Amino acid sequence: MFEARVRVIYGDTDQMGVVYYANYLRYFELARSELFRAHGGSYREMEASGLMLPVVEATCRYLAPARYEDELLIGTEVSEVSRVTLTFGYRVTRVGDPTILCTGTTVHACLGKNGRPARLPEWVARLSTPAAR
Amino acid sequence: MFEARVRVIYGDTDQMGVVYYANYLRYFELARSELFRAHGGSYREMEASGLMLPVVEATCRYLAPARYEDELLIGTEVSEVSRVTLTFGYRVTRVGDPTILCTGTTVHACLGKNGRPARLPEWVARLSTPAAR
Amino acid sequence: MFEARVRVIYGDTDQMGVVYYANYLRYFELARSELFRAHGGSYREMEASGLMLPVVEATCRYLAPARYEDELLIGTEVSEVSRVTLTFGYRVTRVGDPTILCTGTTVHACLGKNGRPARLPEWVARLSTPAAR
Amino acid sequence: MFEARVRVIYGDTDQMGVVYYANYLRYFELARSELFRAHGGSYREMEASGLMLPVVEATCRYLAPARYEDELLIGTEVSEVSRVTLTFGYRVTRVGDPTILCTGTTVHACLGKNGRPARLPEWVARLSTPAAR
Repeated sequence: MFEARVRVIYGDTDQMGVVYYANYLRYFELARSELFRAHGGSYREMEASGLMLPVVEATCRYLAPARYEDELLIGTEVSEVSRVTLTFGYRVTRVGDPTILCTGTTVHACLGKNGRPARLPEWVARLSTPAAR
Repeated sequence: MFEARVRVIYGDTDQMGVVYYANYLRYFELARSELFRAHGGSYREMEASGLMLPVVEATCRYLAPARYEDELLIGTEVSEVSRVTLTFGYRVTRVGDPTILCTGTTVHACLGKNGRPARLPEWVARLSTPAAR
Repeated sequence: MFEARVRVIYGDTDQMGVVYYANYLRYFELARSELFRAHGGSYREMEASGLMLPVVEATCRYLAPARYEDELLIGTEVSEVSRVTLTFGYRVTRVGDPTILCTGTTVHACLGKNGRPARLPEWVARLSTPAAR
Repeated sequence: MFEARVRVIYGDTDQMGVVYYANYLRYFELARSELFRAHGGSYREMEASGLMLPVVEATCRYLAPARYEDELLIGTEVSEVSRVTLTFGYRVTRVGDPTILCTGTTVHACLGKNGRPARLPEWVARLSTPAAR
């Protein structure tokens, strides 16, 4: 599973002293974007070429709180690929601590310039992990 | 279904020209908080009395984009109540337009001062809508 | 001074239990956008007509903290107009409490479709308050 | 000048296709927090020891837009130290490009457990850069 690192800032926390629940979706976005870069791709270039991957569904399970200054690992993998959708799975932990803080998924449509469903680029479709196939 | 109003600001949008997917969870929070107030309660007072309702699960389905300056209705209702959890359902539309832009759910644990599961206050448990019972 | 209302949500606070400092700039944006609407205008329509008002400078003085569930009044006025810039002043208070929590300013350039400085529309230039002239 | 790195995510941009103006204050916070860590300190530990550094003033000048996927360097230094306040200066550039995108400052009060002004810890006071003295 690919892992992106993120440091929790004050602005990510809420008055309960933990990361605000919506901010995990920001971490997920960072992770899938870095997963693309780690495979030589770039979401920016994909958009420039006329493909978009808007989120159509997101889920999140909050298992334990992340806190200010925690250094988080946002694990992500492509868990499912269909001809026109892409599903990512996520798992958030702290560096050096296997406790899972949060898991989640996002499902993305693949749309072309006309806003109609389009085929995923080959290199993206191949990101699907062996375990997930 | 109770409805809170929110105006989409620039800061809620992303470069695709639509509301960024994480921000719906902010709208959901606003709506459930106003639902409490509409019933004479207040999440702040509940916390002051030692009860917390941390989110343990959130889901979101993005059906159509909301855009800058849209005036949104964030419909919400308590869709399920167990002894120690509370589930909200959400439905986002534009004022004057029945098109559903987004639906979602959040599941909350009810925790007491010691961090252990606690009973929901009676007035909260009663928020469960007839349709949902 | 025109006043927009905003309810502080959990997502606006940080672990110090107060509104996170960057979020006041979101409130400022909401207020100036509503000031436009209160005068029959709309920033969305202005953009559609080819004019943009990007922020070139922002300042904020934090005098007293705003807290969760506070209902805030975001006062705003056009404090200065030059041929190609527009300056807003802001003042944040709680409903029913004259204590000033925060003051601020934003300076905006007026740019046309080509990205070059453009003249402010007449109706915007007229927003300048008597006190400010 | 100490430099923190940050990758611009979709959630940081707005519909103009650039980083939303409030988000630079988030970047500033990340940078000053990493500056502390780079000197063996930690804002979390400082808070645990009873000292807080709330922001009392922030300014930002937006010179050129940062965009999605840009890798930004958030330069920061302690530009001024008084007995009970601390001022940071900031300068945002892209990796490998000297163009200054944004500059800013934040002024912080140093408060003790009772909320009264307190002396800055020695190691923080010493962060003041030679150029700034």
